[in-house]
Amino acid sequence: MAYLNDNYLKLKAGYLFPEIGRRVKAFTDANPEAAKRIIRCGIGDVTEPLPDAVRAAMHKAVDEMGTREGFHGYGPEQGYEWLRHAIAENDFRSKGLEVADDEVFVSDGSKCDCGNVLDILGAKNRIAITDPVYPVYVDTNVMAGHTGDADDSGAYAGLTYIRGSAENGFIPAPPSEHVDVIYLCFPNNPTGAVATREQLTAWVEYARAHGSIILFDAAYEAYISDPALPHSIYEIPGARECAIEFRSFSKSGGFTGTRCAFIVIPKTLMASTASGEKKPLHPLWARRHTTKFNGVSYVVQRGAEAVYSPDGRTQIAALIEHYMANAAILRDAAASVGMRVYGGVNAPYIWCSTPAGLTSWQMFDRMLDEANVVITPGSGFGSAGEGYFRISAFNSRANAEEVARRIKAVPW
Amino acid sequence: MAYLNDNYLKLKAGYLFPEIGRRVKAFTDANPEAAKRIIRCGIGDVTEPLPDAVRAAMHKAVDEMGTREGFHGYGPEQGYEWLRHAIAENDFRSKGLEVADDEVFVSDGSKCDCGNVLDILGAKNRIAITDPVYPVYVDTNVMAGHTGDADDSGAYAGLTYIRGSAENGFIPAPPSEHVDVIYLCFPNNPTGAVATREQLTAWVEYARAHGSIILFDAAYEAYISDPALPHSIYEIPGARECAIEFRSFSKSGGFTGTRCAFIVIPKTLMASTASGEKKPLHPLWARRHTTKFNGVSYVVQRGAEAVYSPDGRTQIAALIEHYMANAAILRDAAASVGMRVYGGVNAPYIWCSTPAGLTSWQMFDRMLDEANVVITPGSGFGSAGEGYFRISAFNSRANAEEVARRIKAVPW
Repeated sequence: MAYLNDNYLKLKAGYLFPEIGRRVKAFTDANPEAAKRIIRCGIGDVTEPLPDAVRAAMHKAVDEMGTREGFHGYGPEQGYEWLRHAIAENDFRSKGLEVADDEVFVSDGSKCDCGNVLDILGAKNRIAITDPVYPVYVDTNVMAGHTGDADDSGAYAGLTYIRGSAENGFIPAPPSEHVDVIYLCFPNNPTGAVATREQLTAWVEYARAHGSIILFDAAYEAYISDPALPHSIYEIPGARECAIEFRSFSKSGGFTGTRCAFIVIPKTLMASTASGEKKPLHPLWARRHTTKFNGVSYVVQRGAEAVYSPDGRTQIAALIEHYMANAAILRDAAASVGMRVYGGVNAPYIWCSTPAGLTSWQMFDRMLDEANVVITPGSGFGSAGEGYFRISAFNSRANAEEVARRIKAVPW
Repeated sequence: MAYLNDNYLKLKAGYLFPEIGRRVKAFTDANPEAAKRIIRCGIGDVTEPLPDAVRAAMHKAVDEMGTREGFHGYGPEQGYEWLRHAIAENDFRSKGLEVADDEVFVSDGSKCDCGNVLDILGAKNRIAITDPVYPVYVDTNVMAGHTGDADDSGAYAGLTYIRGSAENGFIPAPPSEHVDVIYLCFPNNPTGAVATREQLTAWVEYARAHGSIILFDAAYEAYISDPALPHSIYEIPGARECAIEFRSFSKSGGFTGTRCAFIVIPKTLMASTASGEKKPLHPLWARRHTTKFNGVSYVVQRGAEAVYSPDGRTQIAALIEHYMANAAILRDAAASVGMRVYGGVNAPYIWCSTPAGLTSWQMFDRMLDEANVVITPGSGFGSAGEGYFRISAFNSRANAEEVARRIKAVPW
């Protein structure tokens, strides 16, 4: 009989957000009146309209598709050259960072890229993740057979967990032992922490010394307001020899439902064959993209291109300003009731300590029951997240203000 | 140092279509005048405008994204329920085939699905592919480590090749030995052959007897005109216990550049754990889709839904009629110069024997040099394709007629 991939059976019961969905549904089924008041600050999903410039570009592209001359069939799997160029030029070269157009690979999402990148890496790598962490990093390694079973805390054998904590400001330093592949996410999901140049430099130096590869998730870089903080790992000297960067239009351009992202793989990034020969990863990813992917919708790529137009930039800056004003409101509310508050300044997530010894899921349930607000339990991001919860600033202003009122009204 | 996936190093130099692209570029660089006359019948890419109904639906969806009320962020990873329902109802249940809405998983392309499905299957499966075959089936198995090295003919150790030939009408029968996973594609790419109900029944009976899984690629089913031929593997009793079906809007709705497809995984389809326990594959794929994918663009899903509207159906029927009239013209031309011709009746591909003992790539070069027409060399689809070439009917009428004239004009 055909075999299934047994590694899937090691996965814990539910990916975090479906589990939240199940609890919310149980609550709404049992409390139809209170259900009408629910405000969702759980999943980090944008809420505001897609910018005009993006929609105008998409309309134009849809019209083009209606003529033989303007019709676009299969595009280049790696993305249209005009989009790869716009990305490399605007996000990197104009900021003094060396990224060639063909080092940019356009995709339909960072979640896909984060999972798929494992395809080109070997099975014997020692994988390090920070904790708390975006669950996709862990789960995709479990699926790929890079781990053993999970223990009672949910930690998988074979992974190296590097704990964030209040003490290190949720920005852990490199480990003392050797690891081959390291996931870093700054601005961090879920904690909102952002590594300084010095902190990132320590990671790059570690990676250079160990021959490690850093998988740098910069999906939230657009939310950095402090000019001293790096937006890209490539701001750190030597990173082109040790890092892959993930970026997305989801949180900058409001593309969570439109779907476009990209990955940067420098041609100078090498990895080892089983026999110890150094080879560049760039051609492997190019081959993967060509063989297992067929490019992003032409209409969507035109929308992404418009993010870099003058109107697009203005509209996106306004979107980010909107969400970050929400973040300030939510930060203040949480702090005012005595919670310790992290993030929310250079990131759209606010990371709060739970009051009065509540576990993360107890806090989730109280917020749902008493405030009718959906948050994300910190322990869903790993055991180091226990005792914390995440509030997303992606909402309307009215909702953010109402959530702030309700947080203050609960007798914690 | 971090390890790369050594399996990628086993891949042959180029995926077929990039190799064609390189040769065409070399020709056009050397022959700028002749380059202007080139007509592409190589890659199976549609050429006619995206149907009005689809574009109207996409425009409407783009407009919705411009309002807070109509904005769509993250959708369900598996696809919106209205699209899964439209697919299951129109493509299956209305034809008497049992497929539940939640057995349909919407994706951004069949190429992606074909490659990604290996994620949920075990590493020890014996894989069978027909030859000639869509190269993605082979290459994704190489990447996943399911093969040894390739021999001089390009055949990989560890795969079971089941040869198509003129004798079996390019529809091979099940093998005598045991295999666990079988790729079947009907209407076939590249040969245009379509299995009869009896032929598919033999495969389903083989799979039931061996506990094998059939990966049934039905991307071209819309091109079947003979009412006796099955469009879906699920027309064969027992297939829900042994088959996954791949479908796409690419070739039916002209979505090659718009990107939408789907896969059907019946809940009754089981596979074995390493220890011999039977488990359903459906939850594994649901988990994969949730963890490594974030759904297809809302705008694109609305476009796909419109394929099933009354206007959409009419427009798509006209598209298919257009391409199939091209196929008849091209078939006749090839036959008139003495080539043996297959396909092109229930499929948009015409599969022709090369004249005068030419190899497939020699034929490719002659067609490019002497007729300025790009075809696809049969050997690019496997060693059983040597001595054949594929002509795609995806073109304008004028181009199809011109290609027919040029085929007749070459002194074969």
